[in-house]
Amino acid sequence: MKSLTVELSGRSYEIKIGSGLLAQCGELIGAVTDAQMLAVVTDSNVAPLYLEAVEKSLTAAGFSTVSVIFPAGESSKNIQTLNMLYERFAQAGLTRGDGVVALGGGVTGDLAGFAAATMFRGIDFIQIPTTLLAQVDSSVGGKTAIDLPQGKNLVGAFYQPKLVLADIDCLKTLTQRTVCDGMAEVIKYGMIADETLFSLLEGMGGIDDLPKYWKQVICICCDIKRAVVAEDEHDTGRRGILNFGHTLGHAYELAYHYETYTHGEGVAAGMVKMLEVEEKQGKNAAQLKARLLALLKKFRLPVKIECTMEAYRAAIGLDKKAKGDMINVIEVETLGHAEIVSMKKDVLFALLEA
Amino acid sequence: MKSLTVELSGRSYEIKIGSGLLAQCGELIGAVTDAQMLAVVTDSNVAPLYLEAVEKSLTAAGFSTVSVIFPAGESSKNIQTLNMLYERFAQAGLTRGDGVVALGGGVTGDLAGFAAATMFRGIDFIQIPTTLLAQVDSSVGGKTAIDLPQGKNLVGAFYQPKLVLADIDCLKTLTQRTVCDGMAEVIKYGMIADETLFSLLEGMGGIDDLPKYWKQVICICCDIKRAVVAEDEHDTGRRGILNFGHTLGHAYELAYHYETYTHGEGVAAGMVKMLEVEEKQGKNAAQLKARLLALLKKFRLPVKIECTMEAYRAAIGLDKKAKGDMINVIEVETLGHAEIVSMKKDVLFALLEA
Repeated sequence: MKSLTVELSGRSYEIKIGSGLLAQCGELIGAVTDAQMLAVVTDSNVAPLYLEAVEKSLTAAGFSTVSVIFPAGESSKNIQTLNMLYERFAQAGLTRGDGVVALGGGVTGDLAGFAAATMFRGIDFIQIPTTLLAQVDSSVGGKTAIDLPQGKNLVGAFYQPKLVLADIDCLKTLTQRTVCDGMAEVIKYGMIADETLFSLLEGMGGIDDLPKYWKQVICICCDIKRAVVAEDEHDTGRRGILNFGHTLGHAYELAYHYETYTHGEGVAAGMVKMLEVEEKQGKNAAQLKARLLALLKKFRLPVKIECTMEAYRAAIGLDKKAKGDMINVIEVETLGHAEIVSMKKDVLFALLEA
Repeated sequence: MKSLTVELSGRSYEIKIGSGLLAQCGELIGAVTDAQMLAVVTDSNVAPLYLEAVEKSLTAAGFSTVSVIFPAGESSKNIQTLNMLYERFAQAGLTRGDGVVALGGGVTGDLAGFAAATMFRGIDFIQIPTTLLAQVDSSVGGKTAIDLPQGKNLVGAFYQPKLVLADIDCLKTLTQRTVCDGMAEVIKYGMIADETLFSLLEGMGGIDDLPKYWKQVICICCDIKRAVVAEDEHDTGRRGILNFGHTLGHAYELAYHYETYTHGEGVAAGMVKMLEVEEKQGKNAAQLKARLLALLKKFRLPVKIECTMEAYRAAIGLDKKAKGDMINVIEVETLGHAEIVSMKKDVLFALLEA
């Protein structure tokens, strides 16, 4: 088991990464909370796989538990499911001294985290991410949210967990496509912050090679994210680099109503498109683009997704960081180094259309 | 116009108290926010009285505005109204750089404040409290919340406003009962923290005397609250003294389904009952009780409300600060000094029943 500490002003918490953590979760969680009852929030896909092991470990450690299962999928990340969580927490007799455990992927973490941030104005929160995407990205950094009909993640809170337990054994049950979904974010970390990680991925034979690198890869990614988050917890500056490929990625997700492409697939094509936007501005991104394309193909991620200007405009309009007619775009010119560039939306539209 | 500064770790904001502030609100708000658009949240009672003046001042100061009016009353402080606010904000094109103005009493401030705390993970928030209760209590301190069917204020956030504008002219349109509702909290401040305030109130002829003291009284109360909040923003210790009379007050509100007694009326009778609980423990509260009773009667507040043990038990069970079988009660033995006492719930029940 590896352990990383996320240091934030005044508070800090551990990310533990390793094998067999689910079975030890009660003891590990017991070390960070005074809660007597824990509400375990999970979805209909994850519950049959891992809920029993988690409940067993929590009970053995002396916690009483209440489990709340919601239907798997992004479409559950809404205010109706949130309300269901609140009512179940209240009915179960959860108190201000108790806590919430998110067991699952990004949707579960975002939703359960927002419920924990707001129930009794904030109770203890523990993340047990079970997908690669959640382990390397969404479970670290304290962003919680639900979607509105008008857009994703429009309502939420910055709320840090007390502990993150990334059990790499959970990755064994993921479909190949879900693994690839997470690999897009892993490749992104290489692009924006770590040439060595990028080279490590280039040296792998393919997807089948990944399992023996899980612990190393997840540690590197969490370490990059914790450094960025420690510098800019509330996402008003440097944290923006984590969004490389994301604004355009969101356009691809939106254009196909979040049904055709995963988040990671959108980000993959979004990173390539951003390099093309850089090239259209006269920057030299040809060699970097060739390396990125090869890596995306190796991990079965799309390098191009067809998209209308309407979808680009809609996604850019919904971008939470847009201000008036300006938007911040994230550019990578040198592998491992990202820059935040403020650009007129109209200039970006013209570059996308050209 | 008087101005108080609330100093919190790293952040601070002003409470401005005076006459004619509504007409100047655009300029005053312009000094504390970079927002381009402001969503003004108000209820169906307050909108016809003050919304036009606020919109006019905001527009004159260069803000674009969207006004959202919800049906007046505690029954609106729920997740459905919250969802309506989110959707109206999104439809109006509010962005992460924009803000929310709460124009109204405690329900409006709690609801709009929670919406501001969570829309885009937190946007600028300005309080314009229009009731005495909101001006002396709920608009200061950063507690925002909605109710669940299982209890009041069970979901919420600590979220500080950027500015509080308490326009005493708004108090002219309050019914006498609503003024008295707020006076219960004013009397509470005297009891827990300020013998001089208590004596000032004792020296008044009655309700008709109040208007000439508004600015002075509201300043004193806000000054007490800001000091308590600065010491314990997240309500884990000393801030509890603000709850003097409240746990039992909540029982009275609950016992009559929040229909018969106002919050202040519950608190008034709750303070008297707490002194009786102290007496049953052998403490000497007789003289203090006599003074409290006289003051409550002068401001037309109840000194006793009939209540079943079931309602007491239910209210104490819902208390967010209860932990296991213990509860913190707030006791005042010497006028102007409150103590937080940890007590077994069963002991409190027995004292209430005796």
